[in-house]
Amino acid sequence: MEDLPGIVITGASGRMGQMLIKTVVDSDKARLVGVVERAGHDWVGRDVGEAMGGAALGVTVTDQPLDAFAKAQAVIDFTAPAATIEFAKLAAQARAVHVIGTTGMTNEDIAKLDPCARHAVIVRAGNMSLGVNLLTVLTRKVAEALDEDFDIEIIEAHHHHKVDAPSGTALMLGEAAAEGRGVKLADVADRGRDGITGARKRGDIGFTAIRGGDIVGEHDVLFAAAGERIVLRHLATDRSIFARGALKAALWGQDKKPGQYDMLDVLGL
Amino acid sequence: MEDLPGIVITGASGRMGQMLIKTVVDSDKARLVGVVERAGHDWVGRDVGEAMGGAALGVTVTDQPLDAFAKAQAVIDFTAPAATIEFAKLAAQARAVHVIGTTGMTNEDIAKLDPCARHAVIVRAGNMSLGVNLLTVLTRKVAEALDEDFDIEIIEAHHHHKVDAPSGTALMLGEAAAEGRGVKLADVADRGRDGITGARKRGDIGFTAIRGGDIVGEHDVLFAAAGERIVLRHLATDRSIFARGALKAALWGQDKKPGQYDMLDVLGL
Amino acid sequence: MEDLPGIVITGASGRMGQMLIKTVVDSDKARLVGVVERAGHDWVGRDVGEAMGGAALGVTVTDQPLDAFAKAQAVIDFTAPAATIEFAKLAAQARAVHVIGTTGMTNEDIAKLDPCARHAVIVRAGNMSLGVNLLTVLTRKVAEALDEDFDIEIIEAHHHHKVDAPSGTALMLGEAAAEGRGVKLADVADRGRDGITGARKRGDIGFTAIRGGDIVGEHDVLFAAAGERIVLRHLATDRSIFARGALKAALWGQDKKPGQYDMLDVLGL
Amino acid sequence: MEDLPGIVITGASGRMGQMLIKTVVDSDKARLVGVVERAGHDWVGRDVGEAMGGAALGVTVTDQPLDAFAKAQAVIDFTAPAATIEFAKLAAQARAVHVIGTTGMTNEDIAKLDPCARHAVIVRAGNMSLGVNLLTVLTRKVAEALDEDFDIEIIEAHHHHKVDAPSGTALMLGEAAAEGRGVKLADVADRGRDGITGARKRGDIGFTAIRGGDIVGEHDVLFAAAGERIVLRHLATDRSIFARGALKAALWGQDKKPGQYDMLDVLGL
Repeated sequence: MEDLPGIVITGASGRMGQMLIKTVVDSDKARLVGVVERAGHDWVGRDVGEAMGGAALGVTVTDQPLDAFAKAQAVIDFTAPAATIEFAKLAAQARAVHVIGTTGMTNEDIAKLDPCARHAVIVRAGNMSLGVNLLTVLTRKVAEALDEDFDIEIIEAHHHHKVDAPSGTALMLGEAAAEGRGVKLADVADRGRDGITGARKRGDIGFTAIRGGDIVGEHDVLFAAAGERIVLRHLATDRSIFARGALKAALWGQDKKPGQYDMLDVLGL
Repeated sequence: MEDLPGIVITGASGRMGQMLIKTVVDSDKARLVGVVERAGHDWVGRDVGEAMGGAALGVTVTDQPLDAFAKAQAVIDFTAPAATIEFAKLAAQARAVHVIGTTGMTNEDIAKLDPCARHAVIVRAGNMSLGVNLLTVLTRKVAEALDEDFDIEIIEAHHHHKVDAPSGTALMLGEAAAEGRGVKLADVADRGRDGITGARKRGDIGFTAIRGGDIVGEHDVLFAAAGERIVLRHLATDRSIFARGALKAALWGQDKKPGQYDMLDVLGL
Repeated sequence: MEDLPGIVITGASGRMGQMLIKTVVDSDKARLVGVVERAGHDWVGRDVGEAMGGAALGVTVTDQPLDAFAKAQAVIDFTAPAATIEFAKLAAQARAVHVIGTTGMTNEDIAKLDPCARHAVIVRAGNMSLGVNLLTVLTRKVAEALDEDFDIEIIEAHHHHKVDAPSGTALMLGEAAAEGRGVKLADVADRGRDGITGARKRGDIGFTAIRGGDIVGEHDVLFAAAGERIVLRHLATDRSIFARGALKAALWGQDKKPGQYDMLDVLGL
Repeated sequence: MEDLPGIVITGASGRMGQMLIKTVVDSDKARLVGVVERAGHDWVGRDVGEAMGGAALGVTVTDQPLDAFAKAQAVIDFTAPAATIEFAKLAAQARAVHVIGTTGMTNEDIAKLDPCARHAVIVRAGNMSLGVNLLTVLTRKVAEALDEDFDIEIIEAHHHHKVDAPSGTALMLGEAAAEGRGVKLADVADRGRDGITGARKRGDIGFTAIRGGDIVGEHDVLFAAAGERIVLRHLATDRSIFARGALKAALWGQDKKPGQYDMLDVLGL
């Protein structure tokens, strides 16, 4: 048990932070060695298990990230761009693997990770699910293998609270399909189909967005030709998959050279 | 064989006309006794089997509908509104069941059928598939049984030649759902979802249209709540179902009183 | 708040008991007034919220069911047959609605509920999900409306821990389909298809069982004919739907006459 | 037009032969230059278009394969093992690409093709559909990328005339999945699940077979883990895809070195 890689979770009190903590605690391949919250948060100084409303876990929430990182082999971080950039510096200093699931990072933000990646392993992805990352690779390969006789449609379904359509993941899949075909998504995207649209344009990539109930996230990539169809489908039914993907990345990074990686590297694709 | 109801097909040379002819010829419950085309069409006077590029069927294409109707128990008619109104008069005169699959009829057109329906059976439907008609009834009932905790989405897929979205059948299903809920579809329809849409509005009925390959026609009615979903799905994989539905209607109408009926009557729903 | 119907949950410490407690506590249409465990259980005498590892809920776990029932408008009970029969007597004495989700009850067990149902409302169902109950009704109606040109297949998917195949719900749907067709399921069930089976027998009802991951429960009833298919599908994605169905039954029963009811009554189908 | 590769079809009068003829005639990338039937068949000596019940095509059915092959760039052959072995010799002599869709060939039969493949291109596959072959590759790759946390299930659906279960294609997909995992399918195949089966065994590959209506052929490869699923799906809706795959193979083979190839080579996978 002592030999298991030690993990620190940042942003402990958020929904994703709590899920990450549970995932590490439940894992038999890693152990929780630290939990970070921002200075002044009322969880700081408390046992994190009790702060989460359950049994004590023997790990005290701290507002001193460097101290926590120094005792760890990896940091898992789903916070916000500014915090993530600071954490990257500290993780590099501590030579800890830094797994970044933070969304909304600009290209400028990402560039700031470069110096850190010279000293430590960084794994960063917009979607940490193994399945979605695998689907992205498959989509690019299938789009490359098949010609425009196969119409590509990307169909996604999410819960009724979601405010944007299509989903970021659907667009990522669309980019992968366009890349496989050697075209630009912006030139071929067909969104919000409604009314007298005329016949579908050959080569277009269509998007449709279904909204209802508490659907966590479902994505279909349809390749439809005369007489046959291929569908590549991913269903997420539990948000914990993003936490488990992040943990897998943390473990994968243990014996890698410093540098920036993504989930495709983790998956070996 | 002689006792089987005799059927006349109008609009013989069209894609639907030819499918109707094949369906009647292949059936062991009816026989083909006449085939009608407009005066001047080059099929007139020829054996219809040979005109279709196959073996002779012993039925000559005629441009004299009344003569043909007089020898028949039913007329199946997928032509155009103006022709259909004329055929309705002649079918009433011949006391033949008139099955109408013609699309694009206005309320005014439909009203012109009323006098005919005093003398003969008319069965008219926008979609002659048993399955789609059944789905419509189910949709209304389920929408009535479930409250607005269940978000309703209507998802359809068709071939890439289709020029309108959503399909007429999808809208018919939407009407059925709205009726089940006691609301007007126009007030709750959410079409062409794209961009920053905000959260889904409770009570809305969403529509999405998938286009690709040679998909004949697929419709899903999704009822999605927290923790569970119901889906009512219809798949059409062969256009011949519309022809078979029409033939079923023709046979069903044989012992009915004069009047206007639809496929729900035929299905006994 | 005081006016909301008061609910008692039995079998409080089990997985389903805890889910029922959470569902009642989270509801704005009912309030939790009692929680019952068997004598000697270490939860007895403790606050139930704390016993569940969270914040106090102000309700103490008791091993005196009658006292608890006397203060309640309804009892929700997913325990075991013997306990349920005892609870039925006490609920009848207390004139509380008794919602029974207990499985494995024999016809003999069920007969023992009859005297209780003369004094109080009993709602009993093998599956408390609104969706599954609705699907059962739809399956019977569709099987009745369509003839044997439509092959019926029941396809279910569950998590990899499930030890039996097909699922009880799949068999219930099969019974409904057989009833709709006026046949006995035992005469037409086609299970475990494998090897050189020969062509499918007309009129058969086929069953297939998919097992994988943590799938909560998915059921498809397929009606497949030449050229078209209808699918009636239910997806359960969260076990809380069974708890919510039970609560709905408890509320529905408030103004009903004594008697035995099932979820179809609750749904008004 | 003259420059288009010339194709010969063997077994002309069979269902697949006729579909191949239509596919070549309809293509703008190849032309039909010969049609072969066995000596004594009543189509020999007739125009093949007329023999098929349609308009003349200007190609006379012959029972002299070598003469036909000598004028062609490729032979497409969905006949029987013995005939195929003879045709392979003649195609090699004529230096024509030999596309073999014949099923039921033993390893011994296949070995007899080796000498022919030293002189000419042979493309042979159990299933000529682009989609199914692509699905096979994807299945192997995904099975390789994911560990046994993902349960693999292969679900197929076919028409009610099919006499065996699971389908040959389902087994081929199972082999691909087993190969990706480095196991033998025979050791892990779980077929005909029914009754008290116990929990699913980790590492198993499950098979289920749905039968109904006129379903041409549908295959799902499901990878189900906790919280997420990937599905790779192929739908065949028209048997012409096998003919089109064969034609694609014939065209692909034009500039290849002599040797034996399969559809994965044609797809470049």
